[in-house]
Amino acid sequence: MYYQKQKATLVAIDCIIFGHDEDGLKLLLIKRAFAPEKNKWSLMGGFLKPDETLDEAANRILKNLTGIEGVYLEQLHVFSDIHRDPGARTISVAYFALVDIHKYETQITDMYHAEWFPLNKKPRLIFDHDDMVRCAQKQLRYKAAQHPILFELLPEKFTIPQLQNLFESVYESLLDNRNFTRKMMSTGLLIRLNGKDKSNSKKGAFLYKLDRRKYKILQQSVLPLGPR
Amino acid sequence: MYYQKQKATLVAIDCIIFGHDEDGLKLLLIKRAFAPEKNKWSLMGGFLKPDETLDEAANRILKNLTGIEGVYLEQLHVFSDIHRDPGARTISVAYFALVDIHKYETQITDMYHAEWFPLNKKPRLIFDHDDMVRCAQKQLRYKAAQHPILFELLPEKFTIPQLQNLFESVYESLLDNRNFTRKMMSTGLLIRLNGKDKSNSKKGAFLYKLDRRKYKILQQSVLPLGPR
Repeated sequence: MYYQKQKATLVAIDCIIFGHDEDGLKLLLIKRAFAPEKNKWSLMGGFLKPDETLDEAANRILKNLTGIEGVYLEQLHVFSDIHRDPGARTISVAYFALVDIHKYETQITDMYHAEWFPLNKKPRLIFDHDDMVRCAQKQLRYKAAQHPILFELLPEKFTIPQLQNLFESVYESLLDNRNFTRKMMSTGLLIRLNGKDKSNSKKGAFLYKLDRRKYKILQQSVLPLGPR
Repeated sequence: MYYQKQKATLVAIDCIIFGHDEDGLKLLLIKRAFAPEKNKWSLMGGFLKPDETLDEAANRILKNLTGIEGVYLEQLHVFSDIHRDPGARTISVAYFALVDIHKYETQITDMYHAEWFPLNKKPRLIFDHDDMVRCAQKQLRYKAAQHPILFELLPEKFTIPQLQNLFESVYESLLDNRNFTRKMMSTGLLIRLNGKDKSNSKKGAFLYKLDRRKYKILQQSVLPLGPR
């Protein structure tokens, strides 16, 4: 009785998908396939179905639109302005995802016409999606300053300069090489490999991989990773 | 067209309301007024209306059920298990609120039959409300370790032992007096008043108030407030 008097609401899920390569932090966008705002750039999204949780919906949307599965995905914030979606009153639960861009690049761009944009060169997005991106960026900075989540954006093997470039593009500021290296080494999360990456200098840079066991343990602890 | 094919969902808001007094951290609960689970202990909640945002809904529910207005209120997490509410498929956006218990005590208990429970003596709650409380406790600990939000739970004038009791009940562990005092003083947030509180000892404890101006500025910064 009491329930039947209540007005139901459309619930959407929108995903802010971050990636990283030598050009810095990137965002995966698609062209919206239906009105309103058809063919405009948009975050990947969809509607919640009766038989799934929000996490399941976010994973489904990510997989259907990009082929991406099993990546770092976190509920961010619900956006609920009354007129945020001109199509109908819809609240949207924003999720942010961290993706190894190299792993998915071909797959994504070939099959689903999605496109990676450097964060500072992204087009204007529909509805309140620009607010969502800002909110996700803020949360990414906040969280990455204390938890080693940025490793999710790196390939299996990486160099310290690559890791530093990642932190610098997340925090939009240059970091001191020596301090940065010391800080990262002191986490105990990096395992040095035998090979060197020589693509950027003759001398080359040592390759590292993440100590996955320690990473699992430390994911919940607070580490001093931030720029200050 | 595309929108009309989507299934709408009931959206609820549930508030985890924290307070604090000499007995430690407390939770404000009500007896649910309708079926299912009528007369069982529950968080304060209600449904989202078409003409309001989630923040507005949370404030409305808090005000209608308790008379409380203008307090610290933060969106926590959306709970969306398919069978979480046996009345109908309902997702619930949990908010947590921090309240000066002394300011509202009489008003609340007289007018709305709500009741404060010490957190470690609370009854079992309906649906997934116990999960919501655990989630809010975790977030409170996480946030209070770095941002001075716990002052929201204290009266206008307070003593250091009172502040320490608050931190100890949030972290469920005893803290070293001297370290705690030094840490709190070093924030620059406390203004010592002339009077003393003599209710707990002959010697009495100095009364302090919060430097509201600095508090506003520091609310976003990261401070080392936590137990370690």
